[in-house]
Amino acid sequence: MGGANVGAEVCALARELGKRIAERGWVLLNGGRDSGVMRASAAGAHEAGGTVIGILLDADASRAAPDLDYAIVTGMGDARNLINVLTSDVVIACPGGAGTLSEVALALKNGKRVILLGWDAGAAFEDFRGGLLTTAKDPEDALAQAKETLPRAGHHSQPG
Amino acid sequence: MGGANVGAEVCALARELGKRIAERGWVLLNGGRDSGVMRASAAGAHEAGGTVIGILLDADASRAAPDLDYAIVTGMGDARNLINVLTSDVVIACPGGAGTLSEVALALKNGKRVILLGWDAGAAFEDFRGGLLTTAKDPEDALAQAKETLPRAGHHSQPG
Amino acid sequence: MGGANVGAEVCALARELGKRIAERGWVLLNGGRDSGVMRASAAGAHEAGGTVIGILLDADASRAAPDLDYAIVTGMGDARNLINVLTSDVVIACPGGAGTLSEVALALKNGKRVILLGWDAGAAFEDFRGGLLTTAKDPEDALAQAKETLPRAGHHSQPG
Amino acid sequence: MGGANVGAEVCALARELGKRIAERGWVLLNGGRDSGVMRASAAGAHEAGGTVIGILLDADASRAAPDLDYAIVTGMGDARNLINVLTSDVVIACPGGAGTLSEVALALKNGKRVILLGWDAGAAFEDFRGGLLTTAKDPEDALAQAKETLPRAGHHSQPG
Repeated sequence: MGGANVGAEVCALARELGKRIAERGWVLLNGGRDSGVMRASAAGAHEAGGTVIGILLDADASRAAPDLDYAIVTGMGDARNLINVLTSDVVIACPGGAGTLSEVALALKNGKRVILLGWDAGAAFEDFRGGLLTTAKDPEDALAQAKETLPRAGHHSQPG
Repeated sequence: MGGANVGAEVCALARELGKRIAERGWVLLNGGRDSGVMRASAAGAHEAGGTVIGILLDADASRAAPDLDYAIVTGMGDARNLINVLTSDVVIACPGGAGTLSEVALALKNGKRVILLGWDAGAAFEDFRGGLLTTAKDPEDALAQAKETLPRAGHHSQPG
Repeated sequence: MGGANVGAEVCALARELGKRIAERGWVLLNGGRDSGVMRASAAGAHEAGGTVIGILLDADASRAAPDLDYAIVTGMGDARNLINVLTSDVVIACPGGAGTLSEVALALKNGKRVILLGWDAGAAFEDFRGGLLTTAKDPEDALAQAKETLPRAGHHSQPG
Repeated sequence: MGGANVGAEVCALARELGKRIAERGWVLLNGGRDSGVMRASAAGAHEAGGTVIGILLDADASRAAPDLDYAIVTGMGDARNLINVLTSDVVIACPGGAGTLSEVALALKNGKRVILLGWDAGAAFEDFRGGLLTTAKDPEDALAQAKETLPRAGHHSQPG
């Protein structure tokens, strides 16, 4: 997960994350739009031969990122953020805005493990820190933490 | 908005808020469950003769707060949080957990004015502070701030 | 429930239905758009002093019918059809297109009583006929049938 | 698409349909539950080496069919039926109950091509017959009709 409107540095981080998710044989799932963290992580995973699923908020796929393998069309606007987190085994959140924060919150509400990559959510999420919520210093650290969460790495694992 | 699992002090705050919303002739809208901030604010508004709308996450109304005038049954789980904020003219958030944070985030994502009553969201929401996001020291302060947002206080105004 | 694109005769039927729902002291709930059966039934109920709730598919209320008392903003497109039927005690369906048929189907799927006013759904819904699904010859007949379904006519009853 | 509670004959039809979808190199998408048409079509596609996506109504994957490659967890109940049809390039509907009818209706509402396999929807859907809605006499006929709809058979094609 992560913002649609982010700078080049965050996009590079997301691309690297996507690449490493694919290299582990995991499936990347994100919001599927053709911008920011979604486009960059999809591109990184796709280039490394991985599988990418995008959960689109629109009622058609016209704004989908080009590197999706599967575009799920919801037509439900931001309500699709719930699907993003419920479908993911682990949520890795790159920097973003309020949309990303809503995904972090919905994930924690539903008992999902959340790893913040390259930022910190501060006081609002203090109750979850060290439990469901941790921070990672780089993509490899994020994936190492994610791996501890997944008892059986395998076909259905979908870090988002 | 606010938590389902909160202490007596927060419930008292929510009840007072509900009462004052009703006294202004505004409609109270919340998540409609029979617990915490939702039950308490509904009770406060109802006692003061106000109108209360609850947006329920379940597929029936069996867990609805007793003081709802209108129970909207969504059957969509936490996806109903989006409806809570899109339907509200202003979102007043009492303390809560990750569910409340998701509502704050979804509201800001959709350009809604959010007033935090009795807590502070910290660094995660820093970009919105002083703009869409402010804090209030008590219910009356929250409503005074809400009123500035509403050009036409009237029938359809639904602070949540 | 009923179509957004219907002729003058169906609109007159919907208006009459709305009026009679209000006269019974029931709440009218529909899809809330400013066209067809939604606009006409809202107008009929509003004129007769009734309460009208509209469940909007858009992310704002700009296309809402003028006679709504409460506009619920979902931003979830046609997914809001599920909310329409789950929230209603009884679904009365005027003629419409595929959207109305989806509401009839979702209502029956969820065990709701459905009354078709002025049309017949034919073979597809044969299994439900005489049970959950009946037809009515006019608005008064529809409401008489609806009343049998409602053990306690009251504040929360929301025929849609 | 198709019913969760159907007889052995319909399950055999669905299995054959899934097998042939996979043999064409298309992706099968359905509601993902471990029963009826969903389980049978997934099994048929999986055995033939195809890819299967299930859009689950629950908030977890505990009731998912065993032959899914990707389980999308929505937690939105029957509202996920909208996702099923918006995501599909063509909807092929096996016999089912009201849930299947809601998918047929939502698909037609959104301008999707619908092919009824082994049944007829009757008068309710008469307006769409011969246009968006046709019937097929067997799985091969359904797929031949589906193929005419798809200008570019390819990676993203997801008959449901």
